[in-house]
Amino acid sequence: MSAAKGRLVIIGLGPGAAEWVTPEATQALAEASDLVGYAPYLERVPERSRQVRHASDNREELARARQALSLATAGRCVAVVSGGDPGVFAMAAAVFEALEAGEPCWRGLDVKVIPGITAMQAAAARLGAPLGHDFCAISLSDNLKSWGVIEKRLTAAADGDFVLALYNPASKARPQRIHDAFACLRARKPPKTPVIFARAVGRPDEEVTITSLAEANPAIADMSTLVIIGSSATRVVSWPGTARPFVYTPRGEAARR
Amino acid sequence: MSAAKGRLVIIGLGPGAAEWVTPEATQALAEASDLVGYAPYLERVPERSRQVRHASDNREELARARQALSLATAGRCVAVVSGGDPGVFAMAAAVFEALEAGEPCWRGLDVKVIPGITAMQAAAARLGAPLGHDFCAISLSDNLKSWGVIEKRLTAAADGDFVLALYNPASKARPQRIHDAFACLRARKPPKTPVIFARAVGRPDEEVTITSLAEANPAIADMSTLVIIGSSATRVVSWPGTARPFVYTPRGEAARR
Repeated sequence: MSAAKGRLVIIGLGPGAAEWVTPEATQALAEASDLVGYAPYLERVPERSRQVRHASDNREELARARQALSLATAGRCVAVVSGGDPGVFAMAAAVFEALEAGEPCWRGLDVKVIPGITAMQAAAARLGAPLGHDFCAISLSDNLKSWGVIEKRLTAAADGDFVLALYNPASKARPQRIHDAFACLRARKPPKTPVIFARAVGRPDEEVTITSLAEANPAIADMSTLVIIGSSATRVVSWPGTARPFVYTPRGEAARR
Repeated sequence: MSAAKGRLVIIGLGPGAAEWVTPEATQALAEASDLVGYAPYLERVPERSRQVRHASDNREELARARQALSLATAGRCVAVVSGGDPGVFAMAAAVFEALEAGEPCWRGLDVKVIPGITAMQAAAARLGAPLGHDFCAISLSDNLKSWGVIEKRLTAAADGDFVLALYNPASKARPQRIHDAFACLRARKPPKTPVIFARAVGRPDEEVTITSLAEANPAIADMSTLVIIGSSATRVVSWPGTARPFVYTPRGEAARR
């Protein structure tokens, strides 16, 4: 066994609201000597004296992971701070990629992942239970994979009649990919399929839009938006006098109408 | 607007460990006058005087949902207590099904879903980052859907080269379905594909098995097991002297070897 005395925790803060930060995450943040992360996530963590902050820019995941592994190997108690769940389109995969490809002296490190509420769960909770049955989570970011792979997965998800949760639907550099995704899905799923744009759920600027595949305007999705697209069973229910429709996917075909 | 004064919260306790219960869930449990749920989940909640417990058996989801809606309509502050995330193969969909099909007087109720850490997140955190890229979650329970639908989704998930998280892999009544699922996947995915059986993660009897699609014994999965099956990119990494392999799915093709 290696003698490295530092440790590395990869922490999920959840989507933004303090009430979604788990006790495990809170405890690990309190114990850390160093916080490493994308600057807006570090800003969510209360300041502590004697705790060193290493803020970095977006798209710097591998460099950030290497920095965290080096600090931990030097004996620091390092927390990599991630939004949502670090295991779902966030920092955990980057740390393990860096660990596998990196320095042999990193290999004995104690590395722990602390799960968190991810954006699709927060969005689903606000709406009802749209993820109430089989679903897929797909990142539309084509920084590291080709559009061909993304399109193959969108097609398979439509063929399997899954509910879809789309992460990273748009960026300033690639505003087109959410439009391409909708074109792919519109060719394969019924026009009345429910579509939800859930922006910044749990944060002050939260905004939720419920629409249909036919009527959706994909241009409203930004990098803070999680998009949910229903299966053939997903239902939008409203009655006169109720505040907002709820959206849910029944647990089986028996509940379909 | 309806004048119903009760309220209904559907709470996710996470997979079992207290450190994964969110502050929002803890607060809602403290405020409830009535707890409704499957008996083993209620047992996880600390006893409070003046709080009424309505424990029910498994497979009683719709009856439980109706009971909760009735109590809330009568003015009680009701918490439906669920394991994991109530929106992921748990009680939230059953409550909205019951609400849609049920009494008109239920419609003005304040119904809120409180998300929780779900089993696949806890399992993934223990292992590294197996859900680090696009994934599907599928329930193998055929109580409410036909095996044909399940097989169609397994096939689509394999075609799309998703990581799969399989919920409800087995029950005493239907021990065969996990074997059928493996037969379906073995016909479509490489024999070396990593497979994880994560049993009771976060509870005292936690047990994690890392194997491959060719060598896996599906009979070890029970109703407390979450099964993860990798994509073609998922990696199992171990070095001499390290305690346990880690498993992760890189963020894109660029990280494949």
